[in-house]
Amino acid sequence: MSKSQAYIDQNKDKFLEELFELLRIPSISTDSSKKGEIRSAANFLIGQLQSLDLNRVELFDTPGNPIVYAEHCPYDDQPTVLVYGHYDVQPSDPDELWDTPPFEPTVKNGDIYARGASDDKGQSFTHVKAIESFVKSGTPIPVNVKFILEGEEEIGSPNLVPFIENHKEMLACDMVLISDTSMFGKDQPSITYGLRGLAYMEVEVIGPNRDLHSGVYGGVVENPINVLCEIIGKLKDDDGIIQIPGFYDKVIPLTEEERIAAAALPFDEDAYKKALDIEEVHGEKGYTTLERSSARPTLDVNGIVGGYIGEGAKTVLPSKVNAKVSMRLVPDQHPKEIAKMFKEHVESLAPDTVRIKVTEHHGGFASVTDLNFYGLKAGAKAFEEIYEKEVLFSREGGSIPIVADFKKILGVESILMGFGITSDAIHSPNEKFSVEDFYRGIKTSARFFELLPSFKE
Amino acid sequence: MSKSQAYIDQNKDKFLEELFELLRIPSISTDSSKKGEIRSAANFLIGQLQSLDLNRVELFDTPGNPIVYAEHCPYDDQPTVLVYGHYDVQPSDPDELWDTPPFEPTVKNGDIYARGASDDKGQSFTHVKAIESFVKSGTPIPVNVKFILEGEEEIGSPNLVPFIENHKEMLACDMVLISDTSMFGKDQPSITYGLRGLAYMEVEVIGPNRDLHSGVYGGVVENPINVLCEIIGKLKDDDGIIQIPGFYDKVIPLTEEERIAAAALPFDEDAYKKALDIEEVHGEKGYTTLERSSARPTLDVNGIVGGYIGEGAKTVLPSKVNAKVSMRLVPDQHPKEIAKMFKEHVESLAPDTVRIKVTEHHGGFASVTDLNFYGLKAGAKAFEEIYEKEVLFSREGGSIPIVADFKKILGVESILMGFGITSDAIHSPNEKFSVEDFYRGIKTSARFFELLPSFKE
Repeated sequence: MSKSQAYIDQNKDKFLEELFELLRIPSISTDSSKKGEIRSAANFLIGQLQSLDLNRVELFDTPGNPIVYAEHCPYDDQPTVLVYGHYDVQPSDPDELWDTPPFEPTVKNGDIYARGASDDKGQSFTHVKAIESFVKSGTPIPVNVKFILEGEEEIGSPNLVPFIENHKEMLACDMVLISDTSMFGKDQPSITYGLRGLAYMEVEVIGPNRDLHSGVYGGVVENPINVLCEIIGKLKDDDGIIQIPGFYDKVIPLTEEERIAAAALPFDEDAYKKALDIEEVHGEKGYTTLERSSARPTLDVNGIVGGYIGEGAKTVLPSKVNAKVSMRLVPDQHPKEIAKMFKEHVESLAPDTVRIKVTEHHGGFASVTDLNFYGLKAGAKAFEEIYEKEVLFSREGGSIPIVADFKKILGVESILMGFGITSDAIHSPNEKFSVEDFYRGIKTSARFFELLPSFKE
Repeated sequence: MSKSQAYIDQNKDKFLEELFELLRIPSISTDSSKKGEIRSAANFLIGQLQSLDLNRVELFDTPGNPIVYAEHCPYDDQPTVLVYGHYDVQPSDPDELWDTPPFEPTVKNGDIYARGASDDKGQSFTHVKAIESFVKSGTPIPVNVKFILEGEEEIGSPNLVPFIENHKEMLACDMVLISDTSMFGKDQPSITYGLRGLAYMEVEVIGPNRDLHSGVYGGVVENPINVLCEIIGKLKDDDGIIQIPGFYDKVIPLTEEERIAAAALPFDEDAYKKALDIEEVHGEKGYTTLERSSARPTLDVNGIVGGYIGEGAKTVLPSKVNAKVSMRLVPDQHPKEIAKMFKEHVESLAPDTVRIKVTEHHGGFASVTDLNFYGLKAGAKAFEEIYEKEVLFSREGGSIPIVADFKKILGVESILMGFGITSDAIHSPNEKFSVEDFYRGIKTSARFFELLPSFKE
């Protein structure tokens, strides 16, 4: 066992306590009142990196939340790995559904419960600790390494792409290493080679200039909620096919090979349904559950609110209603094009009895990584050594638009080395991350850095 | 001028101050935390009635909110008028849209702004003050009078019908007098001879057992909001025809005579649209605006909420969504039958990928009053004398289910003598009631009591 791996074994408790410190900071990026907490989380990471005697550690301000940057690049002949992660988290609401407070990390049955435990504080922190395991055990870091840890991932990274574009030289690398995805299952390591893109929209339907009495005006004044429901109801047909004209035009169909590979992945649909307490899965006709959840585009209403939502009954004809609707995209759908199609189609469905406002939140491209990339192979080997199990390669349904941006701007592939599992309830109450996978993540990351030079082509 | 009318002229300021006292009490019946305020409002009215030396004034407890009762019946040969009103009010939210606080009555441009100013504290209080004008001016009250003022109208009067059934003898009367409707327009008195009924439902669609990440699960797990929108979207067709099987079966069609009378009513559709800031009215194909708003059944979503409704974007696939949906009914639709049809139809539209719960809130029958009833004629004459304008007879879109119940249980017609106007924004922010109409209402009520004996058949 290397000195680095031994250091990890000896410092598990310390690592966990440090992660808890980070998890206690409610760095919710979508909540504008949490700017101070965002900065606290960034400063905590700066402190962590400064303790590692790296060549450079710096906090970069942006028009939004700061970017944590660090680098240590002593080699001319070794690959450079850029570690990307994010220290911002999703909102914790509905708080009443958490069994323990979202920002008081608690270990139960071997899992760390906290907002951000998996997504992405816990996962991204593994790489910081992996580097520490070299530095503090007196071992040279085997490759060049850079860190870029941002605070706006959960709001669509509005300032990251401009930052990368403006710091192309500083960020130059051979690959990006990201731990912000899930393994295929508990104790089943996997590398995600495909991610979906995203187009996130907001639709507001506005009727009369105030809430009206539904008895006095009902039947005459168009009801914005009815209208919005009718519009949303028309966005998919009974077979789950999205009805926005042009939506599927650029979708690259799954190859027969991919479909066979997906069908071979171990997947227990009954257990899946049972875990979610649903009778049936549902989705686009003609595709399997795994295909639908990772390699086909979707359209979901993420939230809706309008009219009287309090206790009991109020006979109101509401003035307006608002819905958030997002679409997951696959190669080669273009988020901006999809957003435009959505806007035009939704506007075309609105009657002239109401006004409709369709606005675009963040979006991002889908991505698929080349399965023959040497970094991917080194990652798989590290996983296999630590988890003692063959690694699966799969596509995942979530979106990390920055993967496509790294490819476009820096010309490099990303290695998606997730240590979480699907049931970690990221974005949900009671988000968790396995303590053991936190440790194995650190070891896998360290082993990856050790193995990488020998895989270099 | 009678001594009673003179007393009214001399006590306007006092009447307004007393109404303000009542309006300051936030007696919101749909808010279970407001039980104390409900009782305060009831006690205020008890105090008012006790000051009038009536034969009997009594507060009746019910399983819900108390009922204020009073009577003064000295005559064997004069009609008995039962005055009905309600002292509970709608919730005031959204409070931020009020220009002045909802429970601090404020006079601006001749209008009283407050929750309940028109519906129904201001309007029902006119009759208390009319009776005072006889008593305090030393004039015998011209007819037998009874008061029943309830505190649960805005939640569907769940305890009123049992109370009436259990007190049929006490409540025996020749007619019911109600001021809880609107005049046809400013300075245009009208008597409402038709009201719509109501069936108010709540629909909950439940998907997975927690909010999910829309990337990881989108495309596979049915989205409850999408499902509910699809269901609501199917409840009406493009012509505004409600698609619930059997919904129109018992609807009595408008007669040619009624349609001609409705068409002759003065109505400025452009002004109507302008006041609401809408481009176009909308409704069931084949009917005019006045017919749609008063004499045809409707279906409106009163509120909807589900998923992430905060600032910004959250990529959540929500666990559940809830909507409140109400239908206005016309003779002879049966609220319970309609509720059952709605429930069965909505349940039939739900796919087996979700669970659906359809529950019934309050409901009530529609009603139409006989235009030849002598009480109606006395009311019209009183209106004409005070407002110096011919009275119109119209149907109204709102629901006062108790009118149908009074007919069924006590066998009497109701006289709907409204002093408000449609633009009073009842149930909305900035509810108002004209100061002048408050005074004219008191005078019209007193004049009605004076005239009634001569109209008696």
